[in-house]
Amino acid sequence: MASERYEKGMDVLKDFNLVDQHHPEGHMDIGAGFKDLAPDLEDFVVEFAFGDIYGREGIDPKQKVLVTMASLVAQGIPQIEMHVKTGIKVGLTPEEIVGAIIHILPYAGFPKVLNGLKAVQKVFSEQGITVKTK
Amino acid sequence: MASERYEKGMDVLKDFNLVDQHHPEGHMDIGAGFKDLAPDLEDFVVEFAFGDIYGREGIDPKQKVLVTMASLVAQGIPQIEMHVKTGIKVGLTPEEIVGAIIHILPYAGFPKVLNGLKAVQKVFSEQGITVKTK
Amino acid sequence: MASERYEKGMDVLKDFNLVDQHHPEGHMDIGAGFKDLAPDLEDFVVEFAFGDIYGREGIDPKQKVLVTMASLVAQGIPQIEMHVKTGIKVGLTPEEIVGAIIHILPYAGFPKVLNGLKAVQKVFSEQGITVKTK
Amino acid sequence: MASERYEKGMDVLKDFNLVDQHHPEGHMDIGAGFKDLAPDLEDFVVEFAFGDIYGREGIDPKQKVLVTMASLVAQGIPQIEMHVKTGIKVGLTPEEIVGAIIHILPYAGFPKVLNGLKAVQKVFSEQGITVKTK
Amino acid sequence: MASERYEKGMDVLKDFNLVDQHHPEGHMDIGAGFKDLAPDLEDFVVEFAFGDIYGREGIDPKQKVLVTMASLVAQGIPQIEMHVKTGIKVGLTPEEIVGAIIHILPYAGFPKVLNGLKAVQKVFSEQGITVKTK
Amino acid sequence: MASERYEKGMDVLKDFNLVDQHHPEGHMDIGAGFKDLAPDLEDFVVEFAFGDIYGREGIDPKQKVLVTMASLVAQGIPQIEMHVKTGIKVGLTPEEIVGAIIHILPYAGFPKVLNGLKAVQKVFSEQGITVKTK
Repeated sequence: MASERYEKGMDVLKDFNLVDQHHPEGHMDIGAGFKDLAPDLEDFVVEFAFGDIYGREGIDPKQKVLVTMASLVAQGIPQIEMHVKTGIKVGLTPEEIVGAIIHILPYAGFPKVLNGLKAVQKVFSEQGITVKTK
Repeated sequence: MASERYEKGMDVLKDFNLVDQHHPEGHMDIGAGFKDLAPDLEDFVVEFAFGDIYGREGIDPKQKVLVTMASLVAQGIPQIEMHVKTGIKVGLTPEEIVGAIIHILPYAGFPKVLNGLKAVQKVFSEQGITVKTK
Repeated sequence: MASERYEKGMDVLKDFNLVDQHHPEGHMDIGAGFKDLAPDLEDFVVEFAFGDIYGREGIDPKQKVLVTMASLVAQGIPQIEMHVKTGIKVGLTPEEIVGAIIHILPYAGFPKVLNGLKAVQKVFSEQGITVKTK
Repeated sequence: MASERYEKGMDVLKDFNLVDQHHPEGHMDIGAGFKDLAPDLEDFVVEFAFGDIYGREGIDPKQKVLVTMASLVAQGIPQIEMHVKTGIKVGLTPEEIVGAIIHILPYAGFPKVLNGLKAVQKVFSEQGITVKTK
Repeated sequence: MASERYEKGMDVLKDFNLVDQHHPEGHMDIGAGFKDLAPDLEDFVVEFAFGDIYGREGIDPKQKVLVTMASLVAQGIPQIEMHVKTGIKVGLTPEEIVGAIIHILPYAGFPKVLNGLKAVQKVFSEQGITVKTK
Repeated sequence: MASERYEKGMDVLKDFNLVDQHHPEGHMDIGAGFKDLAPDLEDFVVEFAFGDIYGREGIDPKQKVLVTMASLVAQGIPQIEMHVKTGIKVGLTPEEIVGAIIHILPYAGFPKVLNGLKAVQKVFSEQGITVKTK
């Protein structure tokens, strides 16, 4: 039986359109790939990362995704595809997503930013998204 | 004679209230402390970091400061006082600033976040800012 | 009213001797210093870091503290004093604590290890602990 | 002619079952892949990393492998396959290996931990190792 | 119309043999791959990274490439192929390139250095470069 | 009795002017501060870091110090005072030292570079060294 915190985390996942009728198992991508190693890992992701943190008040969903992407890119972790997709779902424009990654340049340098942009490019390409440029 | 890009950078600094009649030399805090070692460093800060990057379209000033703070805290660089102050000047609420730092928890862990919050706490304490909590 | 998970986290803190009759507020050092900014931060520490993770089966308390210290030192976060103290409480010998930090040398280099050893040295000095050397 | 320290390092490699009659060249995987660039690199690995550090007293072989894995995962270096295999050889249980990686969650965040678990999963899958879960 | 700084950056690229009659678009590899996301990114690379920084006096071209490679490898960013090629073009010997990467060992550990050497090995192999070893 | 490798390391320390008649114990600053915790640590520093790595052929002493400083600053480890002093002893000009740190800007960002420059500034100030600027 799911805990109250798990339910709260799932509600957040639904609010973020990460789980819906078309992707009823969308949350399973997160942590669930390690069921064989650690079945509780999915709970930590749903309960802590989504229930506690993503569900926390203070900043809005768009800001949360921007902060998430910046945290990863600045650490040299370029696997932000999932977060780019979440960003699109919560209403970030393509310009905001690209602008946020580029804004990291003076704080973490070109190589990390270019690696992050590759992930953005991949998602935009898959979804047919174009960036308005002057 | 200042370059066009330097002027643009200075305009951004004014837009962000980092330089005004009460702090005409506000930008001098940035890079200018190294005039003896590298007089061009201030130009790089004003022209590139402010003119090119902060002056870039795509994301708004509040988002820019959130991304800046996240980039630094996630790298384990806790010296974000200047950016917390900038955040306040561009209209971020105390709850947004704290919320952004706490949102980094699942992505970079507790120690970096706690170090970042210490810097926030210092600025809020100096400026008499309180966070609304339930 | 404390949640079940909070209670579980507090039990772990007691098992690790971080909270006892002489230090009934020992857990308050962790996260509680930010009550003004984020009263829920203490819950995250007690519930997630202690209840979920430290309370998890798989590795024993000594191993948990060694892994904690290695994770921090390798990231260049030298503030491990609290974890050195926890290590002593759960029965790690001084030789094990020093040996673990030195073991990080080939994986993260001398500067991070030397910074970690400074923290160890400080705690050992405060507690009058000596390392058996040949 | 091999130096005394090289011999000591090789003894450690044998103690850790990394070199035996079935894998007489097991140590050649380490550093030897760069013989064309730097033939002395293998010596540094055998003499320093194994002879000096792995051969050092203080912590036991299981603890050494746990500290090694934690140091790498926390730095965002997910290539720990060799160390997972070494861990199995020195007697770490699958639960201890997984437990150690998961224990890093509060200290370095989910993304680095998930990347580390992928490497564990790969080795366990290759060797037909299963984790006991409740 | 190209700015004066862009022209200066292009001059540096020519001085470094990164753009010549055989590779008139050599600079396009840098940043230009993201024209669809951010057409100004190429300007930042040419103007800031090359014009301002690579074009700066103080250290010579060989030293600049060594510092570049060290900065990346030490951060755990092993994609240094382009910089290895630049190093060769400005006259670094194979021994200097390998020697610089190996010199990072005590400061950032074996795993990052081995990852860096893989990139060196790839470029040397493609270009038929051999390292003089004793 | 000192090992052959220890002697070699000490020779390197003398070649680098880190140990001489005026500072016969100069090497003791390195690692020796931890004699109480790990008396062998000094050996690792002298034998491996100096004997094996600093004593290695391939790059010259000036290049070695530049690579050392870049490795540290890029990792966000600003304690480079000792290496700045070594750089001066092996003949790096003030302009080269500053130029190398500033060259890291596009690869690791402003905050790490500014922190590194603070350490340079401290040493230059103590030794009355001035940088030639245009």
